[in-house]
Amino acid sequence: MPIDVYATAGAIEKDLRGHACVIVDVLRATSVIITAIEHGCKSVIPVAEVEDAAIMARQLGGERVLLCGERGGVMIPGFNLSNSPLEYTEEVIAGRSLVMSTTNGTRAILRAGGSEAVFMGGFLNARAVAEAALSVSDSIAIVCAGTDGRYSLDDVLCSGAIISRILDINGKQSLCDLGRTALALYDSYNDDLFESLRGSLHFERLRALGFEEDIRYCLQEDVMQAVPEYKNGVIRKRRPQAAQTAE
Amino acid sequence: MPIDVYATAGAIEKDLRGHACVIVDVLRATSVIITAIEHGCKSVIPVAEVEDAAIMARQLGGERVLLCGERGGVMIPGFNLSNSPLEYTEEVIAGRSLVMSTTNGTRAILRAGGSEAVFMGGFLNARAVAEAALSVSDSIAIVCAGTDGRYSLDDVLCSGAIISRILDINGKQSLCDLGRTALALYDSYNDDLFESLRGSLHFERLRALGFEEDIRYCLQEDVMQAVPEYKNGVIRKRRPQAAQTAE
Repeated sequence: MPIDVYATAGAIEKDLRGHACVIVDVLRATSVIITAIEHGCKSVIPVAEVEDAAIMARQLGGERVLLCGERGGVMIPGFNLSNSPLEYTEEVIAGRSLVMSTTNGTRAILRAGGSEAVFMGGFLNARAVAEAALSVSDSIAIVCAGTDGRYSLDDVLCSGAIISRILDINGKQSLCDLGRTALALYDSYNDDLFESLRGSLHFERLRALGFEEDIRYCLQEDVMQAVPEYKNGVIRKRRPQAAQTAE
Repeated sequence: MPIDVYATAGAIEKDLRGHACVIVDVLRATSVIITAIEHGCKSVIPVAEVEDAAIMARQLGGERVLLCGERGGVMIPGFNLSNSPLEYTEEVIAGRSLVMSTTNGTRAILRAGGSEAVFMGGFLNARAVAEAALSVSDSIAIVCAGTDGRYSLDDVLCSGAIISRILDINGKQSLCDLGRTALALYDSYNDDLFESLRGSLHFERLRALGFEEDIRYCLQEDVMQAVPEYKNGVIRKRRPQAAQTAE
Protein backbone atom coordinates (compact mmCIF):
# COMPACT_ATOMS: atom_id res chain seq x y z
CA MET A 1 0.00 0.00 0.00
CA PRO A 2 1.17 3.52 -0.71
CA ILE A 3 2.32 6.33 1.49
CA ASP A 4 0.55 9.49 0.34
CA VAL A 5 1.88 12.92 1.19
CA TYR A 6 -0.21 16.06 0.91
CA ALA A 7 1.47 19.47 0.82
CA THR A 8 -1.56 21.09 2.46
CA ALA A 9 -4.85 19.96 3.95
CA GLY A 10 -6.53 21.51 0.92
CA ALA A 11 -4.69 19.14 -1.42
CA ILE A 12 -6.34 16.04 0.06
CA GLU A 13 -8.54 14.69 -2.70
CA LYS A 14 -9.35 11.23 -1.46
CA ASP A 15 -11.28 9.59 1.32
CA LEU A 16 -8.89 8.94 4.20
CA ARG A 17 -11.05 6.31 5.90
CA GLY A 18 -8.91 3.28 6.74
CA HIS A 19 -5.75 5.39 6.68
CA ALA A 20 -3.33 6.19 9.45
CA CYS A 21 -2.80 9.94 9.18
CA VAL A 22 0.27 11.78 10.37
CA ILE A 23 -0.13 15.54 10.70
CA VAL A 24 3.07 17.54 10.19
CA ASP A 25 3.29 21.20 11.14
CA VAL A 26 6.88 20.95 12.22
CA LEU A 27 7.50 24.69 12.76
CA ARG A 28 5.98 24.61 15.30
CA ALA A 29 2.50 23.28 16.16
CA THR A 30 3.07 19.53 16.02
CA SER A 31 6.51 19.90 17.63
CA VAL A 32 4.84 21.80 20.48
CA ILE A 33 2.17 19.12 20.88
CA ILE A 34 4.74 16.30 20.87
CA THR A 35 6.74 18.18 23.50
CA ALA A 36 3.68 18.84 25.64
CA ILE A 37 2.55 15.19 25.56
CA GLU A 38 6.10 13.96 26.19
CA HIS A 39 6.29 16.23 29.22
CA GLY A 40 3.12 14.87 30.79
CA CYS A 41 0.37 17.17 29.60
CA LYS A 42 -3.00 15.42 29.98
CA SER A 43 -4.66 16.54 26.76
CA VAL A 44 -4.52 19.12 24.00
CA ILE A 45 -7.74 20.42 22.48
CA PRO A 46 -7.12 21.98 19.06
CA VAL A 47 -9.46 24.78 18.04
CA ALA A 48 -9.55 26.79 14.85
CA GLU A 49 -10.43 30.23 16.19
CA VAL A 50 -9.01 32.28 19.03
CA GLU A 51 -12.54 32.98 20.31
CA ASP A 52 -13.28 29.23 20.40
CA ALA A 53 -10.19 28.72 22.56
CA ALA A 54 -11.39 31.10 25.26
CA ILE A 55 -14.89 29.57 25.25
CA MET A 56 -13.53 26.03 25.43
CA ALA A 57 -11.21 26.95 28.31
CA ARG A 58 -14.12 28.41 30.28
CA GLN A 59 -16.17 25.24 29.67
CA LEU A 60 -13.34 23.05 30.91
CA GLY A 61 -12.90 25.50 33.75
CA GLY A 62 -10.34 25.99 36.46
CA GLU A 63 -6.64 26.45 36.79
CA ARG A 64 -5.68 23.10 35.19
CA VAL A 65 -6.38 24.55 31.74
CA LEU A 66 -3.86 26.60 29.80
CA LEU A 67 -4.61 28.65 26.70
CA CYS A 68 -1.93 28.18 24.06
CA GLY A 69 -1.26 29.22 20.51
CA GLU A 70 -0.19 31.89 18.10
CA ARG A 71 -1.32 34.18 15.37
CA GLY A 72 1.28 35.33 12.88
CA GLY A 73 3.90 33.45 14.91
CA VAL A 74 3.43 35.41 18.13
CA MET A 75 1.57 34.97 21.43
CA ILE A 76 -2.14 35.75 21.55
CA PRO A 77 -3.05 38.46 24.11
CA GLY A 78 -4.56 36.90 27.25
CA PHE A 79 -3.19 33.43 26.47
CA ASN A 80 -0.90 31.51 28.84
CA LEU A 81 1.62 30.10 26.39
CA SER A 82 2.77 30.93 22.89
CA ASN A 83 3.73 28.46 20.19
CA SER A 84 7.34 28.13 21.39
CA PRO A 85 8.08 24.51 22.38
CA LEU A 86 10.70 25.79 24.83
CA GLU A 87 7.87 27.04 27.07
CA TYR A 88 6.28 23.60 27.37
CA THR A 89 8.42 22.27 30.20
CA GLU A 90 7.31 19.53 32.57
CA GLU A 91 7.01 22.10 35.37
CA VAL A 92 4.57 24.19 33.37
CA ILE A 93 2.35 21.65 31.69
CA ALA A 94 2.45 18.25 33.50
CA GLY A 95 -1.10 17.17 34.36
CA ARG A 96 -2.63 20.15 32.59
CA SER A 97 -5.10 20.33 29.72
CA LEU A 98 -4.17 22.69 26.89
CA VAL A 99 -6.55 24.49 24.58
CA MET A 100 -4.54 25.31 21.48
CA SER A 101 -5.20 27.55 18.51
CA THR A 102 -2.63 27.67 15.71
CA THR A 103 -2.70 29.16 12.23
CA ASN A 104 -2.01 26.19 9.98
CA GLY A 105 -1.96 23.06 12.11
CA THR A 106 -5.52 22.95 13.41
CA ARG A 107 -7.08 22.88 9.96
CA ALA A 108 -4.98 19.87 8.93
CA ILE A 109 -5.88 18.00 12.12
CA LEU A 110 -9.59 18.60 11.62
CA ARG A 111 -9.42 17.65 7.91
CA ALA A 112 -7.92 14.25 8.77
CA GLY A 113 -10.57 13.57 11.39
CA GLY A 114 -12.39 10.79 9.50
CA SER A 115 -9.42 8.46 9.18
CA GLU A 116 -8.57 5.34 11.20
CA ALA A 117 -6.10 7.17 13.42
CA VAL A 118 -4.61 10.67 13.47
CA PHE A 119 -1.14 11.18 14.92
CA MET A 120 1.05 14.26 15.31
CA GLY A 121 4.46 13.92 13.70
CA GLY A 122 7.69 15.87 13.72
CA PHE A 123 11.42 15.35 13.60
CA LEU A 124 11.23 14.98 17.40
CA ASN A 125 9.25 11.72 17.21
CA ALA A 126 9.85 10.66 13.58
CA ARG A 127 10.64 7.02 14.40
CA ALA A 128 7.93 6.66 17.07
CA VAL A 129 5.21 8.12 14.85
CA ALA A 130 6.30 5.92 11.93
CA GLU A 131 5.92 2.84 14.14
CA ALA A 132 2.53 4.00 15.41
CA ALA A 133 1.22 4.65 11.88
CA LEU A 134 2.38 1.26 10.58
CA SER A 135 0.78 -0.48 13.57
CA VAL A 136 -2.60 0.94 12.51
CA SER A 137 -2.59 0.60 8.70
CA ASP A 138 -0.41 0.03 5.64
CA SER A 139 -2.23 2.97 4.06
CA ILE A 140 -0.51 5.99 5.49
CA ALA A 141 -1.28 9.61 4.67
CA ILE A 142 1.11 12.32 5.78
CA VAL A 143 -0.73 15.64 5.83
CA CYS A 144 1.49 18.71 5.89
CA ALA A 145 -0.03 21.84 7.36
CA GLY A 146 1.78 24.07 4.88
CA THR A 147 2.22 27.81 5.32
CA ASP A 148 -0.67 30.11 4.40
CA GLY A 149 -2.26 27.28 2.41
CA ARG A 150 0.90 26.75 0.35
CA TYR A 151 3.58 24.07 0.03
CA SER A 152 6.09 24.55 2.85
CA LEU A 153 9.60 23.12 2.61
CA ASP A 154 9.94 22.46 6.35
CA ASP A 155 6.89 20.19 6.50
CA VAL A 156 7.78 18.28 3.33
CA LEU A 157 11.35 17.77 4.57
CA CYS A 158 9.97 16.40 7.86
CA SER A 159 7.65 14.08 5.90
CA GLY A 160 10.79 12.74 4.26
CA ALA A 161 12.27 11.95 7.69
CA ILE A 162 9.12 10.07 8.71
CA ILE A 163 9.05 8.19 5.38
CA SER A 164 12.67 7.13 5.86
CA ARG A 165 11.68 5.60 9.25
CA ILE A 166 8.64 3.86 7.73
CA LEU A 167 10.83 2.34 5.01
CA ASP A 168 13.35 1.24 7.66
CA ILE A 169 10.56 -0.82 9.23
CA ASN A 170 8.75 -1.90 6.05
CA GLY A 171 10.75 -1.42 2.86
CA LYS A 172 7.88 -2.62 0.69
CA GLN A 173 5.79 0.53 1.14
CA SER A 174 5.38 2.45 -2.13
CA LEU A 175 5.47 6.23 -2.36
CA CYS A 176 3.38 8.82 -4.13
CA ASP A 177 5.25 11.46 -6.17
CA LEU A 178 5.38 13.98 -3.33
CA GLY A 179 6.54 11.19 -1.00
CA ARG A 180 9.41 10.46 -3.41
CA THR A 181 10.24 14.15 -3.43
CA ALA A 182 10.15 14.38 0.37
CA LEU A 183 12.46 11.39 0.76
CA ALA A 184 14.88 12.75 -1.86
CA LEU A 185 14.98 16.11 -0.03
CA TYR A 186 15.60 14.41 3.31
CA ASP A 187 18.31 12.16 1.86
CA SER A 188 20.02 15.24 0.38
CA TYR A 189 19.65 17.47 3.39
CA ASN A 190 19.72 15.38 6.59
CA ASP A 191 23.33 16.19 7.37
CA ASP A 192 22.28 19.77 8.17
CA LEU A 193 18.54 20.33 8.34
CA PHE A 194 18.91 23.88 9.66
CA GLU A 195 21.11 25.05 6.79
CA SER A 196 18.94 23.26 4.22
CA LEU A 197 15.93 25.34 5.25
CA ARG A 198 17.76 28.66 5.02
CA GLY A 199 15.86 30.94 2.64
CA SER A 200 12.61 29.01 2.84
CA LEU A 201 9.44 30.92 3.67
CA HIS A 202 8.35 29.67 7.07
CA PHE A 203 11.90 29.28 8.39
CA GLU A 204 12.81 32.86 7.48
CA ARG A 205 9.56 34.22 8.87
CA LEU A 206 10.25 32.59 12.25
CA ARG A 207 13.89 33.62 12.21
CA ALA A 208 12.86 37.23 11.59
CA LEU A 209 10.64 36.98 14.68
CA GLY A 210 13.64 35.79 16.73
CA PHE A 211 12.74 32.10 16.96
CA GLU A 212 16.01 30.56 15.78
CA GLU A 213 16.31 28.49 18.98
CA ASP A 214 12.79 27.14 18.47
CA ILE A 215 13.72 26.07 14.95
CA ARG A 216 16.86 24.28 16.14
CA TYR A 217 14.79 22.56 18.83
CA CYS A 218 12.15 21.35 16.33
CA LEU A 219 14.83 19.94 13.99
CA GLN A 220 16.16 17.44 16.57
CA GLU A 221 15.50 13.92 15.31
CA ASP A 222 14.04 11.01 17.29
CA VAL A 223 14.58 12.50 20.74
CA MET A 224 11.02 11.82 21.93
CA GLN A 225 8.83 8.73 22.15
CA ALA A 226 5.46 10.42 22.64
CA VAL A 227 2.97 9.93 19.81
CA PRO A 228 0.09 12.37 20.27
CA GLU A 229 -3.17 10.96 18.91
CA TYR A 230 -6.25 12.97 17.98
CA LYS A 231 -9.58 11.30 18.72
CA ASN A 232 -13.03 12.79 19.23
CA GLY A 233 -11.73 16.32 19.34
CA VAL A 234 -8.94 15.73 21.85
CA ILE A 235 -5.23 14.94 21.48
CA ARG A 236 -3.82 12.52 24.05
CA LYS A 237 -0.80 10.29 24.36
CA ARG A 238 -1.26 7.19 22.23
CA ARG A 239 -1.79 4.26 24.56
CA PRO A 240 0.30 1.10 24.10
CA GLN A 241 -1.08 -1.33 21.51
CA ALA A 242 -2.02 -4.03 24.08
CA ALA A 243 -4.20 -1.67 26.10
CA GLN A 244 -6.04 -0.62 22.94
CA THR A 245 -6.76 -4.20 21.89
CA ALA A 246 -8.20 -4.90 25.35
CA GLU A 247 -10.87 -2.19 25.01
CA MET B 1 11.76 39.09 -7.51
CA PRO B 2 10.79 35.50 -6.83
CA ILE B 3 10.29 32.50 -9.04
CA ASP B 4 7.04 30.83 -8.00
CA VAL B 5 6.33 27.22 -8.84
CA TYR B 6 2.84 25.74 -8.67
CA ALA B 7 2.38 21.96 -8.56
CA THR B 8 -0.97 22.25 -10.31
CA ALA B 9 -3.07 24.98 -11.90
CA GLY B 10 -5.43 24.60 -8.93
CA ALA B 11 -2.66 25.62 -6.51
CA ILE B 12 -2.30 29.11 -8.02
CA GLU B 13 -3.51 31.45 -5.32
CA LYS B 14 -2.24 34.78 -6.55
CA ASP B 15 -2.87 37.18 -9.36
CA LEU B 16 -0.42 36.41 -12.15
CA ARG B 17 -0.72 39.78 -13.88
CA GLY B 18 2.74 41.14 -14.61
CA HIS B 19 4.23 37.64 -14.47
CA ALA B 20 5.91 35.64 -17.19
CA CYS B 21 4.29 32.22 -16.94
CA VAL B 22 5.90 28.99 -18.05
CA ILE B 23 3.52 26.05 -18.43
CA VAL B 24 5.10 22.64 -17.85
CA ASP B 25 3.32 19.44 -18.82
CA VAL B 26 6.50 17.69 -19.80
CA LEU B 27 5.00 14.21 -20.36
CA ARG B 28 3.83 15.06 -22.94
CA ALA B 29 1.70 18.07 -23.90
CA THR B 30 4.21 20.92 -23.69
CA SER B 31 6.94 18.70 -25.19
CA VAL B 32 4.60 18.00 -28.12
CA ILE B 33 3.85 21.70 -28.59
CA ILE B 34 7.54 22.66 -28.45
CA THR B 35 8.29 19.97 -31.04
CA ALA B 36 5.42 21.07 -33.28
CA ILE B 37 6.47 24.74 -33.20
CA GLU B 38 10.15 23.84 -33.70
CA HIS B 39 9.16 21.81 -36.75
CA GLY B 40 7.30 24.67 -38.39
CA CYS B 41 3.71 24.25 -37.33
CA LYS B 42 1.86 27.55 -37.81
CA SER B 43 -0.26 27.55 -34.66
CA VAL B 44 -1.64 25.34 -31.92
CA ILE B 45 -5.09 26.01 -30.51
CA PRO B 46 -5.54 24.39 -27.10
CA VAL B 47 -9.06 23.34 -26.19
CA ALA B 48 -10.33 21.71 -23.03
CA GLU B 49 -12.91 19.31 -24.42
CA VAL B 50 -12.74 16.79 -27.26
CA GLU B 51 -16.03 18.13 -28.68
CA ASP B 52 -14.61 21.67 -28.75
CA ALA B 53 -11.67 20.40 -30.79
CA ALA B 54 -13.87 19.04 -33.55
CA ILE B 55 -15.99 22.22 -33.66
CA MET B 56 -12.89 24.44 -33.74
CA ALA B 57 -11.36 22.39 -36.54
CA ARG B 58 -14.52 22.73 -38.62
CA GLN B 59 -14.51 26.51 -38.05
CA LEU B 60 -10.91 26.78 -39.19
CA GLY B 61 -11.79 24.43 -42.04
CA GLY B 62 -9.83 22.63 -44.64
CA GLU B 63 -6.95 20.27 -44.85
CA ARG B 64 -4.37 22.54 -43.17
CA VAL B 65 -5.88 21.74 -39.77
CA LEU B 66 -4.96 18.66 -37.78
CA LEU B 67 -6.82 17.38 -34.72
CA CYS B 68 -4.39 16.33 -32.01
CA GLY B 69 -4.53 15.13 -28.44
CA GLU B 70 -5.19 12.30 -26.03
CA ARG B 71 -7.47 11.03 -23.36
CA GLY B 72 -6.04 8.63 -20.79
CA GLY B 73 -2.72 8.78 -22.68
CA VAL B 74 -4.08 7.37 -25.97
CA MET B 75 -5.27 8.77 -29.32
CA ILE B 76 -8.80 10.12 -29.59
CA PRO B 77 -10.95 8.32 -32.22
CA GLY B 78 -11.28 10.41 -35.38
CA PHE B 79 -8.25 12.60 -34.51
CA ASN B 80 -5.21 12.94 -36.79
CA LEU B 81 -2.40 12.77 -34.25
CA SER B 82 -2.02 11.46 -30.72
CA ASN B 83 0.05 13.02 -27.95
CA SER B 84 3.28 11.33 -29.01
CA PRO B 85 5.91 13.94 -29.93
CA LEU B 86 7.49 11.43 -32.33
CA GLU B 87 4.51 11.89 -34.67
CA TYR B 88 5.08 15.65 -34.98
CA THR B 89 7.69 15.56 -37.73
CA GLU B 90 8.32 18.44 -40.10
CA GLU B 91 6.78 16.43 -42.95
CA VAL B 92 3.52 16.03 -41.05
CA ILE B 93 2.99 19.38 -39.41
CA ALA B 94 4.99 22.16 -41.18
CA GLY B 95 2.65 25.00 -42.10
CA ARG B 96 -0.34 23.35 -40.45
CA SER B 97 -2.59 24.57 -37.68
CA LEU B 98 -3.19 22.12 -34.86
CA VAL B 99 -6.24 21.95 -32.63
CA MET B 100 -5.11 20.16 -29.48
CA SER B 101 -7.00 18.69 -26.56
CA THR B 102 -5.02 17.21 -23.65
CA THR B 103 -6.02 16.03 -20.21
CA ASN B 104 -3.89 18.14 -17.88
CA GLY B 105 -2.08 20.71 -19.99
CA THR B 106 -4.93 22.75 -21.39
CA ARG B 107 -6.30 23.70 -17.99
CA ALA B 108 -2.95 25.07 -16.88
CA ILE B 109 -2.59 27.11 -20.08
CA LEU B 110 -6.03 28.63 -19.70
CA ARG B 111 -5.49 29.37 -15.98
CA ALA B 112 -2.34 31.38 -16.75
CA GLY B 113 -4.12 33.38 -19.46
CA GLY B 114 -4.17 36.70 -17.58
CA SER B 115 -0.43 37.05 -17.15
CA GLU B 116 2.04 39.19 -19.09
CA ALA B 117 3.19 36.30 -21.26
CA VAL B 118 2.52 32.55 -21.30
CA PHE B 119 5.21 30.21 -22.64
CA MET B 120 5.37 26.44 -22.99
CA GLY B 121 8.36 24.87 -21.27
CA GLY B 122 10.00 21.48 -21.18
CA PHE B 123 13.41 19.89 -20.94
CA LEU B 124 13.58 20.25 -24.74
CA ASN B 125 13.69 24.07 -24.57
CA ALA B 126 14.66 24.67 -20.93
CA ARG B 127 17.32 27.27 -21.68
CA ALA B 128 15.34 29.01 -24.41
CA VAL B 129 12.18 29.32 -22.32
CA ALA B 130 14.21 30.58 -19.33
CA GLU B 131 15.66 33.35 -21.53
CA ALA B 132 12.21 34.21 -22.91
CA ALA B 133 10.64 34.42 -19.44
CA LEU B 134 13.43 36.63 -18.07
CA SER B 135 13.14 38.93 -21.07
CA VAL B 136 9.50 39.62 -20.15
CA SER B 137 9.57 39.92 -16.34
CA ASP B 138 11.60 39.23 -13.21
CA SER B 139 8.41 37.78 -11.73
CA ILE B 140 8.25 34.30 -13.14
CA ALA B 141 5.59 31.70 -12.38
CA ILE B 142 6.15 28.11 -13.44
CA VAL B 143 2.81 26.35 -13.60
CA CYS B 144 2.99 22.55 -13.63
CA ALA B 145 0.05 20.75 -15.17
CA GLY B 146 0.28 17.89 -12.66
CA THR B 147 -1.41 14.54 -13.11
CA ASP B 148 -5.11 14.18 -12.31
CA GLY B 149 -4.97 17.43 -10.35
CA ARG B 150 -2.07 16.19 -8.19
CA TYR B 151 1.59 16.97 -7.75
CA SER B 152 3.55 15.17 -10.47
CA LEU B 153 7.27 14.45 -10.10
CA ASP B 154 8.03 14.78 -13.85
CA ASP B 155 6.72 18.34 -14.06
CA VAL B 156 8.41 19.49 -10.84
CA LEU B 157 11.72 17.97 -11.95
CA CYS B 158 11.42 19.85 -15.26
CA SER B 159 10.68 23.06 -13.36
CA GLY B 160 13.99 22.48 -11.59
CA ALA B 161 15.76 22.31 -14.96
CA ILE B 162 14.18 25.60 -16.07
CA ILE B 163 15.03 27.24 -12.73
CA SER B 164 18.67 26.14 -13.09
CA ARG B 165 18.79 27.92 -16.48
CA ILE B 166 17.15 31.05 -15.05
CA LEU B 167 19.72 31.16 -12.23
CA ASP B 168 22.52 30.67 -14.78
CA ILE B 169 21.36 33.91 -16.42
CA ASN B 170 20.34 35.83 -13.29
CA GLY B 171 21.63 34.35 -10.03
CA LYS B 172 19.80 36.97 -7.96
CA GLN B 173 16.34 35.46 -8.51
CA SER B 174 14.86 34.11 -5.31
CA LEU B 175 12.84 30.91 -5.10
CA CYS B 176 9.62 29.88 -3.42
CA ASP B 177 9.69 26.67 -1.35
CA LEU B 178 8.51 24.46 -4.21
CA GLY B 179 11.07 26.13 -6.47
CA ARG B 180 13.80 25.23 -3.96
CA THR B 181 12.49 21.68 -3.94
CA ALA B 182 12.41 21.50 -7.75
CA LEU B 183 15.98 22.74 -8.04
CA ALA B 184 17.19 20.29 -5.35
CA LEU B 185 15.51 17.42 -7.21
CA TYR B 186 17.05 18.48 -10.50
CA ASP B 187 20.50 18.88 -8.95
CA SER B 188 20.22 15.38 -7.44
CA TYR B 189 18.78 13.70 -10.50
CA ASN B 190 20.10 15.38 -13.64
CA ASP B 191 22.70 12.71 -14.31
CA ASP B 192 19.89 10.29 -15.19
CA LEU B 193 16.45 11.86 -15.50
CA PHE B 194 14.88 8.68 -16.84
CA GLU B 195 15.97 6.52 -13.92
CA SER B 196 15.05 9.22 -11.41
CA LEU B 197 11.42 9.11 -12.56
CA ARG B 198 11.12 5.34 -12.31
CA GLY B 199 8.23 4.47 -9.99
CA SER B 200 6.56 7.88 -10.29
CA LEU B 201 2.89 7.99 -11.25
CA HIS B 202 2.79 9.61 -14.68
CA PHE B 203 6.02 7.99 -15.88
CA GLU B 204 4.79 4.49 -14.98
CA ARG B 205 1.38 5.12 -16.49
CA LEU B 206 2.96 6.09 -19.83
CA ARG B 207 5.44 3.22 -19.68
CA ALA B 208 2.58 0.76 -19.13
CA LEU B 209 0.97 2.16 -22.29
CA GLY B 210 4.20 1.50 -24.23
CA PHE B 211 5.47 5.10 -24.45
CA GLU B 212 9.01 4.62 -23.14
CA GLU B 213 10.51 6.15 -26.30
CA ASP B 214 8.26 9.20 -25.90
CA ILE B 215 9.51 9.62 -22.34
CA ARG B 216 13.17 9.40 -23.41
CA TYR B 217 12.46 11.95 -26.14
CA CYS B 218 10.83 14.42 -23.71
CA LEU B 219 13.77 14.17 -21.28
CA GLN B 220 16.34 15.51 -23.77
CA GLU B 221 17.65 18.83 -22.50
CA ASP B 222 18.10 22.04 -24.49
CA VAL B 223 17.83 20.46 -27.94
CA MET B 224 15.27 22.98 -29.24
CA GLN B 225 15.13 26.76 -29.50
CA ALA B 226 11.40 27.16 -30.12
CA VAL B 227 9.50 28.98 -27.38
CA PRO B 228 5.77 28.51 -27.96
CA GLU B 229 3.76 31.48 -26.68
CA TYR B 230 0.06 31.48 -25.89
CA LYS B 231 -1.79 34.67 -26.71
CA ASN B 232 -5.48 35.31 -27.35
CA GLY B 233 -6.32 31.64 -27.46
CA VAL B 234 -3.57 30.61 -29.88
CA ILE B 235 -0.05 29.24 -29.38
CA ARG B 236 2.54 30.48 -31.86
CA LYS B 237 6.29 30.71 -32.06
CA ARG B 238 7.57 33.56 -29.90
CA ARG B 239 8.76 36.32 -32.18
CA PRO B 240 12.20 37.84 -31.64
CA GLN B 241 12.28 40.65 -29.07
CA ALA B 242 13.03 43.37 -31.65
CA ALA B 243 9.97 42.59 -33.75
CA GLN B 244 7.79 42.78 -30.66
CA THR B 245 9.12 46.16 -29.64
CA ALA B 246 8.41 47.48 -33.13
CA GLU B 247 4.67 46.78 -32.86
